Amino acid sequence: MSSEERTNLAAIVEGNRKIRLEHRDIPTLGTNDVLISISSVGICGSDLKYWAYGKCGRFSLNGKSMVIGHEAAGVVTSVGSGVKHLKIGDRVTIEPGVPCKSCEICQGGRYNLCKKMRFCATPPVDGNLCNYYVHDADFCYKIPDNITTEEAAMLEPLSVAVYACERANIGLGQSIVIFGAGPIGILCGLVAKNSGASNICIVDIDEGRLAFAKSLGAANKTYFATLEASKDPSKVADDILEILGSDLGAHSSLECSGADSSLATGIHVTRPGGSVILVGRGSLSPSIPIVLAATKEVDIKGVFRYANNYPQSISLVSSGAIDVSKLITHRFTLQESEKAFEVAADSRQRAIKVMINC
Amino acid sequence: MSSEERTNLAAIVEGNRKIRLEHRDIPTLGTNDVLISISSVGICGSDLKYWAYGKCGRFSLNGKSMVIGHEAAGVVTSVGSGVKHLKIGDRVTIEPGVPCKSCEICQGGRYNLCKKMRFCATPPVDGNLCNYYVHDADFCYKIPDNITTEEAAMLEPLSVAVYACERANIGLGQSIVIFGAGPIGILCGLVAKNSGASNICIVDIDEGRLAFAKSLGAANKTYFATLEASKDPSKVADDILEILGSDLGAHSSLECSGADSSLATGIHVTRPGGSVILVGRGSLSPSIPIVLAATKEVDIKGVFRYANNYPQSISLVSSGAIDVSKLITHRFTLQESEKAFEVAADSRQRAIKVMINC
Amino acid sequence: MSSEERTNLAAIVEGNRKIRLEHRDIPTLGTNDVLISISSVGICGSDLKYWAYGKCGRFSLNGKSMVIGHEAAGVVTSVGSGVKHLKIGDRVTIEPGVPCKSCEICQGGRYNLCKKMRFCATPPVDGNLCNYYVHDADFCYKIPDNITTEEAAMLEPLSVAVYACERANIGLGQSIVIFGAGPIGILCGLVAKNSGASNICIVDIDEGRLAFAKSLGAANKTYFATLEASKDPSKVADDILEILGSDLGAHSSLECSGADSSLATGIHVTRPGGSVILVGRGSLSPSIPIVLAATKEVDIKGVFRYANNYPQSISLVSSGAIDVSKLITHRFTLQESEKAFEVAADSRQRAIKVMINC
Amino acid sequence: MSSEERTNLAAIVEGNRKIRLEHRDIPTLGTNDVLISISSVGICGSDLKYWAYGKCGRFSLNGKSMVIGHEAAGVVTSVGSGVKHLKIGDRVTIEPGVPCKSCEICQGGRYNLCKKMRFCATPPVDGNLCNYYVHDADFCYKIPDNITTEEAAMLEPLSVAVYACERANIGLGQSIVIFGAGPIGILCGLVAKNSGASNICIVDIDEGRLAFAKSLGAANKTYFATLEASKDPSKVADDILEILGSDLGAHSSLECSGADSSLATGIHVTRPGGSVILVGRGSLSPSIPIVLAATKEVDIKGVFRYANNYPQSISLVSSGAIDVSKLITHRFTLQESEKAFEVAADSRQRAIKVMINC
Repeated sequence: MSSEERTNLAAIVEGNRKIRLEHRDIPTLGTNDVLISISSVGICGSDLKYWAYGKCGRFSLNGKSMVIGHEAAGVVTSVGSGVKHLKIGDRVTIEPGVPCKSCEICQGGRYNLCKKMRFCATPPVDGNLCNYYVHDADFCYKIPDNITTEEAAMLEPLSVAVYACERANIGLGQSIVIFGAGPIGILCGLVAKNSGASNICIVDIDEGRLAFAKSLGAANKTYFATLEASKDPSKVADDILEILGSDLGAHSSLECSGADSSLATGIHVTRPGGSVILVGRGSLSPSIPIVLAATKEVDIKGVFRYANNYPQSISLVSSGAIDVSKLITHRFTLQESEKAFEVAADSRQRAIKVMINC
Repeated sequence: MSSEERTNLAAIVEGNRKIRLEHRDIPTLGTNDVLISISSVGICGSDLKYWAYGKCGRFSLNGKSMVIGHEAAGVVTSVGSGVKHLKIGDRVTIEPGVPCKSCEICQGGRYNLCKKMRFCATPPVDGNLCNYYVHDADFCYKIPDNITTEEAAMLEPLSVAVYACERANIGLGQSIVIFGAGPIGILCGLVAKNSGASNICIVDIDEGRLAFAKSLGAANKTYFATLEASKDPSKVADDILEILGSDLGAHSSLECSGADSSLATGIHVTRPGGSVILVGRGSLSPSIPIVLAATKEVDIKGVFRYANNYPQSISLVSSGAIDVSKLITHRFTLQESEKAFEVAADSRQRAIKVMINC
Repeated sequence: MSSEERTNLAAIVEGNRKIRLEHRDIPTLGTNDVLISISSVGICGSDLKYWAYGKCGRFSLNGKSMVIGHEAAGVVTSVGSGVKHLKIGDRVTIEPGVPCKSCEICQGGRYNLCKKMRFCATPPVDGNLCNYYVHDADFCYKIPDNITTEEAAMLEPLSVAVYACERANIGLGQSIVIFGAGPIGILCGLVAKNSGASNICIVDIDEGRLAFAKSLGAANKTYFATLEASKDPSKVADDILEILGSDLGAHSSLECSGADSSLATGIHVTRPGGSVILVGRGSLSPSIPIVLAATKEVDIKGVFRYANNYPQSISLVSSGAIDVSKLITHRFTLQESEKAFEVAADSRQRAIKVMINC
Repeated sequence: MSSEERTNLAAIVEGNRKIRLEHRDIPTLGTNDVLISISSVGICGSDLKYWAYGKCGRFSLNGKSMVIGHEAAGVVTSVGSGVKHLKIGDRVTIEPGVPCKSCEICQGGRYNLCKKMRFCATPPVDGNLCNYYVHDADFCYKIPDNITTEEAAMLEPLSVAVYACERANIGLGQSIVIFGAGPIGILCGLVAKNSGASNICIVDIDEGRLAFAKSLGAANKTYFATLEASKDPSKVADDILEILGSDLGAHSSLECSGADSSLATGIHVTRPGGSVILVGRGSLSPSIPIVLAATKEVDIKGVFRYANNYPQSISLVSSGAIDVSKLITHRFTLQESEKAFEVAADSRQRAIKVMINC
């Protein structure tokens, strides 16, 4: 089939809980770009927010439409003249953010903080839940034969977890508390274990999620949090520490639930000199027991996406250390995208990761 | 004068804005202790709180009395049998906290976080505003001839500033914002400058303090904050950044004022990847723009006293890099302690550091 | 049996390849000490050197005799009056070095570098291959029920490996080269894997050791080095990198063989910005391709024992992450100590770890 | 004068101790480039090596000619269409190395280690001792009005010193030893002082250089090394430590002399847990007391140029913290380049930095 005959179906959101499938032109290729035939795209919480409300955090569709999707993998079908490390037919995973590469922040290596970052499916930049997608080759990584494209799409959330665990300085023999047993919390647990943590307690308000997380090896301990209990973070912390069996406290806590009370509980549950990592996002300006954090020198560190973590994620999956495929609970085709989003948004469906194969 | 004839006058607080002078026994000496004839003791904000209210943060006199004072220096008058590095006649500065030296935290080097820490003038441990005081020799440092005992007493707040600047990773050519132009803020400015910072803006609501800080070289820029302005931290941050002449934002901010709004302003004013250091203490659980901090990866780190910083402070003063004597605005004798506290507590007196010479 | 009736048989070396068994007094207990009935003691390479030559590195028996042994575990039989965290009957592992706890280096947390360190079986300090041994309780760690005393004795070499991997900053998805497939090299491989390394190549001149290391999971790749090949480190490095499948080079190399050529190969095999960790000791002043190391910014870092690693080692074994018992290839009684040393020193016996049970 | 009329005189080396002045075409401008009218170019030791021998380290002219010069500053005379942060007339300093910006190493922030780096006057890449030069705008930095173009040219060696001091983790109150009182050693001393070091001993075999270094404030102590003395590094180290007044040893040593014996002395003179930084280059594979280094955990770290340091260097000079102009001892015009090189290469001329103004 020649290039002219190929069609490019794209899944478009407008903030009204609908997916509109539309034929788009196949984008043109810059010197340092590759054209990718998309194979698999996972649905993430931020995708659901644009789909349902047209906004996520400080970003908004502002009434416009946008191709959704940013957890994607596919096959290279065309290569820009300046691209050296990829060729047609290579299977690649796509790191969805392309920074400017020129500013002080990019040069310093923390490119995730670049103010000129263009990130898939973050308005006004289109995502990659479509047939054909062009991306900067520097942020496309060839995957080895033993990684499927579904697994390759999972490398995006896995990279969030890798970066979060690095920010937490998780190391050998540590005790870790993870708040939230969704996909990110579970991946954080798996990465923490692979970072050497030997005692991991995962906390959630859904017992099914806790059991699933434990069955995947993301934690050896679980704590079922009731909304009632969350009213007093210090008591919840005491309960978690009893389960964890740690007098001093956890070495670090990873907040992946978006619940404000978890941040407070994290400060209580973490030992002096540890850190609480904010992976999830709750209220913009919650009340935080900051004097306690300061007195214990529990550092509060945020995580914004990831930087330099894709090669690590590829190695972790390729070596068999982490099996990301087990998190995929539901699968749909590109044509079924609307149903895929409905399932992902419906807690009764108990989805962990919904995957769309194009 | 023989040991038997020496008297030990001690300044005692009870939380009623009074100082009671009382003769105490000269304490007995342990194997690893030294007996010190106290020469100079500075008054700190926490001392004022015990004097006025009988409590400071989570610590309380609980109706009991306590010898006040923890910023002290003096002369060794007796030496325990196990002490090797000090001898009678040595002039020493006293690091007021003695940790257990045995727990996991002490062994790891962050002894300021030791749960068994005994710290001068933190209930129920007596302080050292008295004639004779016994301390663990490991936490007494011989000072060179070119440091006066007044300066040696200033090494305690200087160590707070050294530690704070280390926690902030202040380095060469950086831009720094300091909130609060009291003794700690001024010392942080001087230390930041000595850490290589080339652009320092200090912020206060008192123009006299700003001018004083600048005259001492603690900052090259100042920002006069009105209480009105503090209502919108993002606007205050914009104003500070214009003065600082930085587009990206400050590399770090040091909160030394205890004002909740300064913490919020610090998050706004700090560049992506920087940190806000909490040196001062405000409300226990203020509302904090934590999503902004997380998205910019501005880490929030507390400072609890200091660890391993006295040798550095001694070197900084001895080499002439920092002149701490210029912060001493008022001097009193031990007998005048009550007046000294009254002056230190009265903002109209414009005291920066009040020093008591015993 | 009362304390008076207990006998204390001790294994003594004099540098003549003999073990003399002698009855020693049961040592007296200091305030912060515990008396331990020794259960298991592993033999280390340094023990063999004192046994055979009376010296190891810069330390020498100088014609005197010394109780040998420093990889030990046992049961607490008496407790000093100041000891809080241990009681009679507790099973403990012994961290063999006791630092001064008072100097600048100890206070800073790197106590392994303390100049006043007293370390078991490092002249003139006696070791613990005996029935009864007294040690500072701060450096005795209670072990959980699921760790045997043999495994507890293995925590000493495991701590060397934990510390080495921390010095190498081994992290998620990394490629690592380990020189030497003896006990330390194997433990480094197991710890590197638990630190997230996904591609580990172990190098040795003994194919049996390589196979053993791989069977234990200490490496997924092996390189059989011939003495001939070691003549050109850059070519050996090329071979290793081909096996490793890495263009850029390994993230770090751990030299655990004591061969000078391995250090040179490590510099060649490590990627720019990585590090070579010296765990083994070869010649005092070998020729090193230092300009290459400097140009690539491959840092050369030594490892001297360990600091703060026992809690981690306990967690790693207790959680099942690392099975140290599989390294124990030979077992003897205290009475058989001489034979134990002969076996450990005889390469034909193919011992990895020789354990003596008292 | 129109662009067509401008001539571009370039100083060309061929490895025969000659400078050939040749008219070259004014280079064409890429999208992200700027054309710079060069104002000032400093001569560095590597320039002298290409001039005299046609090679430096692993790089060689291989019989070809090359425009020399890499410490340069000038005025922007033309701007590529994609350049946002510079405009015609801006005075800029040129960071001479342009990395690929795409590889794993560049993305990680250590772009100085990029294998595709193109660096001025490193064969086969031409330098910038000429009238007109084109450079990637990302590596041209606008300088403020209070920095002259001569000072701006000095920012290149200053950045070497800034990076070296960062690699050494030089901090508040530290004791530092610097080997070599040439331009880099002196700049390291000035930067170390600005990093908080309070006790700096500089070592050289030329008493004039030592006096000059001290007069500039690059050190408060000096050690005159005789070639004789260098035969026993441990004795030289003892002498230096006596001058430094440090029992434990220096926190770090910076080797800026290229003498092999200084590296050995640095290992002896540095305290346990410190580091020796290789800024200079001596023999390719010298004998190094590596067991001593390993036992003390004195890390050996190389420095290859710099990364992310120009903004810092600009701030340090602009703020007045470091006066680089005082290092410029000789000045020549572009036409006098050959004489400039002869003076720089002639130790009797006592040049520190020779500057060529175009």
